[in-house]
Amino acid sequence: VGLPEIELSAKLPRGFRAGAATAGIKASGRPDLGVVAVMGQPAAAAATFTTNRFPSAPVVMSRAHLDANGGRVAALLSTSGCANAATGEAGLADQRALAAAVASALGIDPEQTLAVATGLIGPRLPVDRIVPAIERLVASGLRGDPAALADVAEALRTTDSRAKWATVRVGDATVSGIAKGVGMIHPRMATMLAYVLTDAAVEPAQLRAWLGPIVGRTWNQLTVDGDTSTSDTVFLVASGASGIGPSEELRLGIEAVARSLARQQAADGEGATSLITCRVVGARDDVDARAVARAVVSSSLVKAAVHGRDPNWGRIADAIGNAQVADAPVLLSAGLDPEQAGRRGGQRVDVDPARVRITICDVEVFAGVPVTFDPAAVRERMHADEIVIGVDLGDGDGIGEAFGCDLTEAYVRENSEYST
Amino acid sequence: VGLPEIELSAKLPRGFRAGAATAGIKASGRPDLGVVAVMGQPAAAAATFTTNRFPSAPVVMSRAHLDANGGRVAALLSTSGCANAATGEAGLADQRALAAAVASALGIDPEQTLAVATGLIGPRLPVDRIVPAIERLVASGLRGDPAALADVAEALRTTDSRAKWATVRVGDATVSGIAKGVGMIHPRMATMLAYVLTDAAVEPAQLRAWLGPIVGRTWNQLTVDGDTSTSDTVFLVASGASGIGPSEELRLGIEAVARSLARQQAADGEGATSLITCRVVGARDDVDARAVARAVVSSSLVKAAVHGRDPNWGRIADAIGNAQVADAPVLLSAGLDPEQAGRRGGQRVDVDPARVRITICDVEVFAGVPVTFDPAAVRERMHADEIVIGVDLGDGDGIGEAFGCDLTEAYVRENSEYST
Repeated sequence: VGLPEIELSAKLPRGFRAGAATAGIKASGRPDLGVVAVMGQPAAAAATFTTNRFPSAPVVMSRAHLDANGGRVAALLSTSGCANAATGEAGLADQRALAAAVASALGIDPEQTLAVATGLIGPRLPVDRIVPAIERLVASGLRGDPAALADVAEALRTTDSRAKWATVRVGDATVSGIAKGVGMIHPRMATMLAYVLTDAAVEPAQLRAWLGPIVGRTWNQLTVDGDTSTSDTVFLVASGASGIGPSEELRLGIEAVARSLARQQAADGEGATSLITCRVVGARDDVDARAVARAVVSSSLVKAAVHGRDPNWGRIADAIGNAQVADAPVLLSAGLDPEQAGRRGGQRVDVDPARVRITICDVEVFAGVPVTFDPAAVRERMHADEIVIGVDLGDGDGIGEAFGCDLTEAYVRENSEYST
Repeated sequence: VGLPEIELSAKLPRGFRAGAATAGIKASGRPDLGVVAVMGQPAAAAATFTTNRFPSAPVVMSRAHLDANGGRVAALLSTSGCANAATGEAGLADQRALAAAVASALGIDPEQTLAVATGLIGPRLPVDRIVPAIERLVASGLRGDPAALADVAEALRTTDSRAKWATVRVGDATVSGIAKGVGMIHPRMATMLAYVLTDAAVEPAQLRAWLGPIVGRTWNQLTVDGDTSTSDTVFLVASGASGIGPSEELRLGIEAVARSLARQQAADGEGATSLITCRVVGARDDVDARAVARAVVSSSLVKAAVHGRDPNWGRIADAIGNAQVADAPVLLSAGLDPEQAGRRGGQRVDVDPARVRITICDVEVFAGVPVTFDPAAVRERMHADEIVIGVDLGDGDGIGEAFGCDLTEAYVRENSEYST
C-alpha cells in the first residue's frame, strides 16, 4: 500500500504535554484519566465520531466544540470506566463540568477542549472525584517527554489486554497514535477511541481532508463484533511545533499509524486468538473492494471457522455474496470520503461468482469453482497470529482490506459475564 | 397483530401428495430427499429467494422456472446435506438433472418443478444416487394424508434440533408450512428453506402480492448469526383443491404460519437457549420499527447479555442507535414490499434518545434517561424460553418486531467444529 514502516510505540510529538492519573472512575483503581495539553498556540484538529444515534456526551460536546473553535484545540481529556452515554442532559452537563475544570486549570477556553470517554453505558461520571484529579494532574502531572503519551494510552484501556500505539517519523516530524477498543467494534467507526498527534504544521482543513479517507481505509474496515458504539472518536491533532508542513509523505505517515492501530485493535479483539485480514483485489472500485473485505471479516461463520482452523471457503464465498456497500459517509467532522460520496449504501456488491478466486493463507481454495487443495496443509498454516484471506473478484482494479478476529467461546463468556 | 392462532403441526392441504426418502446425500443416513407433488392441474406459486450474490443452483433454477412457468408449478423437490452452491455450471446441470427426473417420474414439464437444497457449500450433489431415489419415491412413496408433509419437514433438517411446522385453518381451507434453518440466518431472507402450502384457490399474482410484505414482517425479521445464505427460499403454493378463494382471513392465516415458522427457527438457533423477541412501537413508520427491532436482536452484545441473563440495557440502547433501514427490497420473485419501496437502505434510523423507552421482560429499564429498577428481579424474569425486549421510540405509530436468539459458547463450538 506504499505506507511507511511504523514503530510500535507511543512518542509524544513536540508541542504537547501529557499525563495520566487515577481519578477513581474504575473500580479496579487503575489509571482512568488522561490529559494531553497543547503548548503555546492552539493546535489544528480534525475528528471523526460515531454515527450511533445514541452518541455519548463527550461525542456531543466535542462535536459542538469543534464546530465552535474552527478546528483549533488546546487540550484533550480522556476518561475510562464510564462511557457517559445514554445519560441525557445531566450527562452532558457533567462532561461540560470536566471541560471547564480542564480549561480552568490550563487557562484556556472550554471550547478549545475535546473529550473522549469509554466504559459502561448508562452510569453518570463521578464528577466530584474527577475534577480534583484533573486539577492535580494539570498542576503537577503533565510531561513533555516522549513516553508521556504511553501513560495516556494505558489510562484509556478497559477490556484491552494491552495498549495500542504506533509511531512514524516523517523527516523531522513525528506522527504518533494511541487507541483503545477491543469490543463493540464495527465498521462505520469502531467502538474505539484514538488520538493521532503530530508536531507537523497542518491547517485544520487539510487535516479534515486527510482524515476522512484515512479512516475509511483503516478504522472503518475494522470489526470485532458488529456493534458500533456510542462513543467512537478519532482525534487528529497537529501542534506545528516541528515546523514541517503538509506533504504526501506526512499523509502516508498518518495513514500508517491509523492502519497499525486498527490492526492492533483487531488482533486484541475480545476473546480473539488471531487477527483476520481480508485483502480484496479485482473489484470494480475501492469502495466495492472494501465492502467485500468487510463482509468477510464480519461473518460470524467465517470468524468461527477461523477459530476452528477450518479452511471453510464456502462461508467465505457466502460472505462475499452478502457484501454491501457501506452506508452513507459518516465521517462527520472530517468531511465526506470523496471516494464514497454518491454511492448508495445498503446495496449488494455486484459479484460474478464464476470470476471469484479465494485464497486462505496463500493457498487457492476456490477459482470460480471449487479447486482441489490439501485441507491439512491449510489448517497447519492457519495456526498463525494473522490469517490472511485473499479475494480476487476478477472484475477491475479496485483494492481494499479489512481487519477482524476469530469468534471464540471466550468472546461469548466475556460478554455474557460483563455485568451491568 | 390480529393474526389467527396457529397449531404446531404439519398438515398436508388437499391437492398435494408428499413423501420423503433417504437418498444417501447425508453421511448420517437420515432422510434427505423430499417431494411434494401437485395433483391434477398445476398449482399457483410465489417465491422469495436469497439476495446473496453466490446463489445456489436450486435458487438459480427455481427462479428461472418461475419466470418461465408464470407461477404454475407441479412439484417441489428438496434435498438436504449438500447446498449445491458455488458449484458453477456443473452444479446447475446437476440440479436440472434432478428436475428432469422428478418431471419424468410425475409426467410433468421440468419447468413446472421448483427445488431447494441445504447443507455444505461447495460439494457436488450425488446425482447418481438421488435420481433413482426420486424414481422410487414418486413411484411408491407419495401420500395424500395430512401427516405426509411432516416427513418432508423431517427430511429438510440439517443442524435443526427439531422440525418446524405450523398450520392454520381458514374456514374450509388449510394453510400449512414447514421450514428448516438454524444458522447462517439473517434478515434479507434467513438461511432457511420454507414451504407454505394451501388448498385455497389463489392466482399467482395475488400470492406474489401477499408474500413480499409477509416475508418482510416475518422471515426478514429473523436473525441467528447475521449471515445470509446462498440458498434462502420460501415457496408459497396454492393447489386450489378446497375451492376457497382469496380473502384477508386467508392472508392473515398465511402470515400467521410464516411468523410461527420464523419464531420456531429463532428459538432453535444454533446453540441458543432462548428466543429473543424485540417489539418496537412509536416509530415513524413500520419500516423504521422493523429496522430497530432487527438491530436489537442482531447485536452480538445484546445476544451475549441475554445469554448471561444480564439486563444490560446500555447494549440495547447502543443497538437502537445503530439501526439502519434495510437495504433495497429483495423479494425477487415475490415483487417489492410496497412499504419499503422507495426507502433508501443503509441509513441510520433517526432516533431521539430522550424519547426512547426500553423494557426487558416488561420491566422498564430506560426512559430517556436511566431508570431505577431491580436488576435481580429482571434477571429472574430472564430465565424464560422467550425474552421480550420492548422499545418505544416515542415518535409515531410505526410498529414492528424481530426474532433472534442468545449467543452462546455452544454456537461458537458448533461453528468452529463443523467441518468442511
